[in-house]
Amino acid sequence: MPSTPRRLLRLLRLCAAASASVLILVLGRSLALAADGGSGQAAAHSDPMAIVLLAAALVIALAVIGRGAAGRFDQPDVLGELLIGIVIGNIGYQFGLPVFAVIMHLHEAGALFHEVWTTGATVTEAATHLFGEAAARPETGIGLFVQAAEASDSAWLLVGLTLWLFSNIGIILLLFQVGLESSVREMRHVGGRALAVAVVGVVLPMVLGYGISAVLVPGAPASTHLFVGATLTATSVGITARVFSDLGRLQSREAQIILGAAVIDDVLGLIVLAVVVGIVTTGGLVLGEAVRIVVISLVFLGGVLILGPHVVRAGLPAFRALDRSRAKLLYPLALCFVLSWMASYIGLAAIVGAFAAGIIIEEAIFAEPDPGDQQTLADLVRPLEAVFAPVFFVVMGMQVNLRAFLDLHVLMLASALIVCAVGGKVVAGAVAGSDVDRATVGLGMVPRGEVGLIFANVGRGLGVMDEALFGAIVVMVVVTTLITPFTLRWSLARGRARTETP
Amino acid sequence: MPSTPRRLLRLLRLCAAASASVLILVLGRSLALAADGGSGQAAAHSDPMAIVLLAAALVIALAVIGRGAAGRFDQPDVLGELLIGIVIGNIGYQFGLPVFAVIMHLHEAGALFHEVWTTGATVTEAATHLFGEAAARPETGIGLFVQAAEASDSAWLLVGLTLWLFSNIGIILLLFQVGLESSVREMRHVGGRALAVAVVGVVLPMVLGYGISAVLVPGAPASTHLFVGATLTATSVGITARVFSDLGRLQSREAQIILGAAVIDDVLGLIVLAVVVGIVTTGGLVLGEAVRIVVISLVFLGGVLILGPHVVRAGLPAFRALDRSRAKLLYPLALCFVLSWMASYIGLAAIVGAFAAGIIIEEAIFAEPDPGDQQTLADLVRPLEAVFAPVFFVVMGMQVNLRAFLDLHVLMLASALIVCAVGGKVVAGAVAGSDVDRATVGLGMVPRGEVGLIFANVGRGLGVMDEALFGAIVVMVVVTTLITPFTLRWSLARGRARTETP
Repeated sequence: MPSTPRRLLRLLRLCAAASASVLILVLGRSLALAADGGSGQAAAHSDPMAIVLLAAALVIALAVIGRGAAGRFDQPDVLGELLIGIVIGNIGYQFGLPVFAVIMHLHEAGALFHEVWTTGATVTEAATHLFGEAAARPETGIGLFVQAAEASDSAWLLVGLTLWLFSNIGIILLLFQVGLESSVREMRHVGGRALAVAVVGVVLPMVLGYGISAVLVPGAPASTHLFVGATLTATSVGITARVFSDLGRLQSREAQIILGAAVIDDVLGLIVLAVVVGIVTTGGLVLGEAVRIVVISLVFLGGVLILGPHVVRAGLPAFRALDRSRAKLLYPLALCFVLSWMASYIGLAAIVGAFAAGIIIEEAIFAEPDPGDQQTLADLVRPLEAVFAPVFFVVMGMQVNLRAFLDLHVLMLASALIVCAVGGKVVAGAVAGSDVDRATVGLGMVPRGEVGLIFANVGRGLGVMDEALFGAIVVMVVVTTLITPFTLRWSLARGRARTETP
Repeated sequence: MPSTPRRLLRLLRLCAAASASVLILVLGRSLALAADGGSGQAAAHSDPMAIVLLAAALVIALAVIGRGAAGRFDQPDVLGELLIGIVIGNIGYQFGLPVFAVIMHLHEAGALFHEVWTTGATVTEAATHLFGEAAARPETGIGLFVQAAEASDSAWLLVGLTLWLFSNIGIILLLFQVGLESSVREMRHVGGRALAVAVVGVVLPMVLGYGISAVLVPGAPASTHLFVGATLTATSVGITARVFSDLGRLQSREAQIILGAAVIDDVLGLIVLAVVVGIVTTGGLVLGEAVRIVVISLVFLGGVLILGPHVVRAGLPAFRALDRSRAKLLYPLALCFVLSWMASYIGLAAIVGAFAAGIIIEEAIFAEPDPGDQQTLADLVRPLEAVFAPVFFVVMGMQVNLRAFLDLHVLMLASALIVCAVGGKVVAGAVAGSDVDRATVGLGMVPRGEVGLIFANVGRGLGVMDEALFGAIVVMVVVTTLITPFTLRWSLARGRARTETP
């Protein structure tokens, strides 16, 4: 440990160096601007990539600061990333900075882009068509976003798109790495219990959601209650996986059960959505639809888990013959991307494919030593995951719009939903078996993440869910996701304490 | 080595496994489609990210195959990546596949997007405005691209943008890693010789280019000859750096001189462009402009090289206090991104910043051991570079439009330009000093890459360069870039053979 005077000296040097670099930058820029004013040709390399790199560096720095802060309070890294994203994202949004408006409204950006591109409308026309009159008023969030999108340099859109891309790569790599720490054998071992947890964790929140909706929104039709129930069934396991990873507990049986149950939940969620949409639109049960989803999912997951390991082993020699030195990284990675695409292609979440890819790849298949190859597969994937996964959580934080929390009616609805959402999954954890920490399993299933939002969006599209209910679901999704790092850490610490004092 | 029967068995198993997975996919897809036909809701997760992941996996696979093929013929990896890009890219383009049209015309895509977004024109209107009547005819390349861009799913644009982003990250990471293998001390050591090589390598091609243009295009004004000369001055060092890296020769003095000269060339190129544009537009010399560029570049490069190492050392403890386990990767990477942005901000190429960041970071500053930290900085950056850098070269190959080689007049012009381009740089290598392989230095400076194209584009924009001349410059850029892996490998092998036989 350096002594205090040495620390002070370091700090002084740091400040001096930082000031010097700022000075250089400012000087350089004013010279560049002056030069640019001269003939307009100085920026020969003027490159949209530059702003992307700056944004990436800033998000990396934010994530680092967030992790540092979380570490101070002995909380999981991911909590720090989420919270700093929420704080910076909402401050920037409140101050009307375009880039934060674009990030907050990334989902709208896709639709807006599509509309502008295909219809030949201007940005404002397309936005008014898509989002109504609010889009024209810059004092609203969506209006601010439209203004930013419209500004003649599309740099903010590019930054938004890049962060979207990076965060998606991040969550794929995270689930892939989590999968690498599991094996087919382990997943089979916990399969039955994962199925039980998943089924109870879908049925119970569905029933509770229907009931609470019937009580709180008595005037609404049954289809509304059905959709509220459906949004409560989802499980988004990204946060949970990251907390287990942060705390070094991915190998625990609790983690394995949660991950298995989350994969099954993704399939069950598809079925619930199909059935609910069928009831709402046709008025009857569409059993054939549900059966089809089950068959597709079983064929995919079964095929991957049973044939996958053989395919992986069989393909490796060919890949290695082509590129011996990079095969250990690129072969698993290509497989991860392909399986993610396949999962998405048949309607499952891409991360289910990434997780499956991780499960079927074992370090052991690379046992044949490569020249100069001392790094394990995990060593090779970790740098990629370390760069991209935090982007996912910082950006997720930046998309939490605190304005949703300002409406008292919405908050009351949300509170009731949160109780059902947490209660339903915690009770589901109880069927995980007596030899695991059941509270941990239940709490790990609580976060709803983007899956709940997708369901709610479908309901809004079908006209069975009004703005207040939709807002309450957004708050429920945010809260169930944000409390998980706290509750899971608490639960894991408690479980460990119990184990250590017999 | 496995025996032949075992190999056959493996092959059979591979085929069986591959057929099984294709079957699963097809079956799953038809089921998914059937399900989708049922109620239209099966694709709850339908995710634009999926196609991006598939494209990434395919480009990774292409790069691997290209490297494997290059390895068979004992050529550098990068040559295989380029060639497979050219082959697949041009076949796909010839067959009219939208994604290849988008990749071939990525530069136009940016302009088209900007026009559609800002003017509210339809894609076709904007394209006709930007690219003329050819845009409306789908049998032309640009027409095909416009058709693809216009198709209601913007998935191909997203794929193109992603590949653009990945390839830019790739070249940044490559130059960063190359920089990591150099140090400030080494660069200072070769500084004078690099300067000499750079100056001769700018002046001589400029003079040769002016002369050959005056001979071959006698009717054109002097400003045309000036621009032809200017396009020949550029050096794009990505290919060269990669060849040295592939062959494990980055530490050689030749590599250091080339890299130093390339950085100086980037500054000189800016000056040449500013002066030439000044002469063409105002008719006189704009010395003030040139002086400004020199001052900006010296302040930036000098500031980074002199203050940089101190700033890096001073900032590390703060970064480490926040995130000890990831600091060794994320701190250098954030620095690389920030310096790339700064370089781009003042008008230099982003890769100059990335290279500078690599130079000022030394493994030694991480000497204080971290818990569980056995990986060197190079170990941590290599996986990132291994994934992204090949994308740059495959995509570069895919953007080589072989149609440009079909015009005899263009080819003759191009041949003359190529002779000047290669000759000028090879002669420049002669001033590198007698203790290095001067041919290697000269041949390493030959590739013009995108820098030459940027210059030619400015000339076309100013109306001093017609389509034939522009086409010839494109062919010159492609040829000087593509021959470099061959010539450099030959030269390095020759140099080594000479050293080993005294």
